[in-house]
Amino acid sequence: MPTSESFDPLPASADWAHLHSALSLAEQAIGLSDPNPRVGCVITSAGGQVLGQGHTQQVGQAHAEVMALRDAAQQGNTVVGATAYVTLEPCAFFGRTPPCCDALIAAGLSRVVVALADPHPKVAGAGLARMRAAGIEVRVLDPQHPLAVAAAALNVGFLTRMARGTPWVRMKVACSIDAQTALRNGQSQWITGPEARRDGHAWRRRAQAVLTGIGTVLADNPRLSVRELPTHCQPLRVVLDSHARTPLQAQILAEPGATLVCGLGEPAAAATLRSAGAQWLALPAQGERVDLQALLQALGQREVNELHVEAGAVLNGALLQQGLVDELLLYVAPTLLGPGRPQAVLPELTALTQATRWRWLAPQLLGSDLRLRALR
Amino acid sequence: MPTSESFDPLPASADWAHLHSALSLAEQAIGLSDPNPRVGCVITSAGGQVLGQGHTQQVGQAHAEVMALRDAAQQGNTVVGATAYVTLEPCAFFGRTPPCCDALIAAGLSRVVVALADPHPKVAGAGLARMRAAGIEVRVLDPQHPLAVAAAALNVGFLTRMARGTPWVRMKVACSIDAQTALRNGQSQWITGPEARRDGHAWRRRAQAVLTGIGTVLADNPRLSVRELPTHCQPLRVVLDSHARTPLQAQILAEPGATLVCGLGEPAAAATLRSAGAQWLALPAQGERVDLQALLQALGQREVNELHVEAGAVLNGALLQQGLVDELLLYVAPTLLGPGRPQAVLPELTALTQATRWRWLAPQLLGSDLRLRALR
Repeated sequence: MPTSESFDPLPASADWAHLHSALSLAEQAIGLSDPNPRVGCVITSAGGQVLGQGHTQQVGQAHAEVMALRDAAQQGNTVVGATAYVTLEPCAFFGRTPPCCDALIAAGLSRVVVALADPHPKVAGAGLARMRAAGIEVRVLDPQHPLAVAAAALNVGFLTRMARGTPWVRMKVACSIDAQTALRNGQSQWITGPEARRDGHAWRRRAQAVLTGIGTVLADNPRLSVRELPTHCQPLRVVLDSHARTPLQAQILAEPGATLVCGLGEPAAAATLRSAGAQWLALPAQGERVDLQALLQALGQREVNELHVEAGAVLNGALLQQGLVDELLLYVAPTLLGPGRPQAVLPELTALTQATRWRWLAPQLLGSDLRLRALR
Repeated sequence: MPTSESFDPLPASADWAHLHSALSLAEQAIGLSDPNPRVGCVITSAGGQVLGQGHTQQVGQAHAEVMALRDAAQQGNTVVGATAYVTLEPCAFFGRTPPCCDALIAAGLSRVVVALADPHPKVAGAGLARMRAAGIEVRVLDPQHPLAVAAAALNVGFLTRMARGTPWVRMKVACSIDAQTALRNGQSQWITGPEARRDGHAWRRRAQAVLTGIGTVLADNPRLSVRELPTHCQPLRVVLDSHARTPLQAQILAEPGATLVCGLGEPAAAATLRSAGAQWLALPAQGERVDLQALLQALGQREVNELHVEAGAVLNGALLQQGLVDELLLYVAPTLLGPGRPQAVLPELTALTQATRWRWLAPQLLGSDLRLRALR
């Protein structure tokens, strides 16, 4: 990755504004372009006039650059000599679509400003190099630039999967001030309010898969689909269910989109689940349970960029203890519940130095609740 | 209280700016004017030029209005026909100082803009009325006005004590993401970082008393003084200690300022504590423990406006269960501790509707920690 490139645009403020617009476009690819990265593109004249713009479409359809070129053509705008602002390095290979860098070259652009280099092994600077070889002036933001950071955050799952083969794991928990997710008797419905629920669905929509455990399926019978806002893709619902105990009546099997039940071996119930429309995936064991690292590898192979975990304390605890969680997404209701159910089953520590440290992101009030995010 | 008064200043923006300045001055009375309210005053000419300004001084010394009049006189400014902006209704009685409303009348002011009426039984509109009777144009902000809300927040303890006779009770807890204040073995030092500690001392400084329990004194031997920032007043340190078990070597007894040990009856150890410089206060019992409502009444009689609680889970739990806590002040470190010590010992609930509801205030990042505040 050309991280040493400097960003010295002329004029800087116009570049900033156009890249910012491109980033806003990229956000419109959430819930649409999975598993492709969310990319936006704005093409401007030398004078700064917007000639065309677009963002990544559904998988197999046009990427942002091609959408922006088409938009310019539809408006009758010529883009020869123009500048393209793209939030991710244009692709350089024939995947499900032809390479975007070639499209920009063919269109006669003279300058391309890129927010972030693409770590995809078939791109990784090749898109930049090929455009430069064609005489295009190419600039890439410093990775510390706020717009580069924002472009990376929007594609944190894609970038993570490219880097390590497994998804970005975001664990969502709704709890009280005293960190209880439910009463001891299990009551937990509506601890948090409608704004928090809606926000939770927005994070589900960002994910290509939602993970839960069989315990939660049996106890709460959740649906785990995106319902509070529109989406073109329902995330894959993944149930960790060693012995295929998922009931055929479980709501999770009836929602739009696919459900993947992951367990050990090939129990008889697996075939029944398959006949009910679910997928069954046998994974290696770690002790008596499914190997969680193997689960993440399998999801990475299925092009899951972001994995949204909505599970109980046992699975949450296992993921945390194995260091597999990248982000905590907490909704904290302004209430004290007293002894109830914990966020995660964790071992007792004997020294504070054993505790994992996280890094808070900016907190936010959502209706009557608080949304907290922390990164490892 | 004249809550129905309308605020229709001319010119509005200048009034806003001068009252805002007066509020900034009032904040300088924190850690200085206790137990008097924090008040600021700005006197301006008809043209809006600042003639004098000031804030409440130490108890028995001048109030904000008199400080502003003195400041004007020292600068050689005449205040006849001027406007005074005051964050709290000028006092109307001879307390430790003469009435401020009379000082403003005598000085020949023609207009007084007040952020908030004073609920003190000896004021309560009398200051406004007396100034109006003297021909001064008096305006009071609507209580919902942001500057009125800010003026009230600065004096939340004073206003609360005037209204119900007991202090505003703020419970401070430093904990982990999973709401643990310490490991099971008691380790808790430095869960939160220096910024959170300094902020905690700033809240201590706002209080006229800091409350803890004998359990915390014996286990942690805290000092509970304001050390991280300058102050003219050390809050009274209050130890809830039914049987006078506070060790004579306890650090809490050696810090600058006074320590009040509250317990049941007159155990022999009480005399020893007195001889060591502490005060002993016998309070009525509720069951086997000190009656907490009686404690708050006693502290109210001692003119404690804000009570800062830094206690263990037992005392925290007792205060919460009896509904005696007005505000939660939480410092949340970005770490997971697993099974440890809870924020408060609370009873198990059987229905979510039994849980107390709080209201979040805006959260804030402080260094690596998060500060959360919630009101009942």
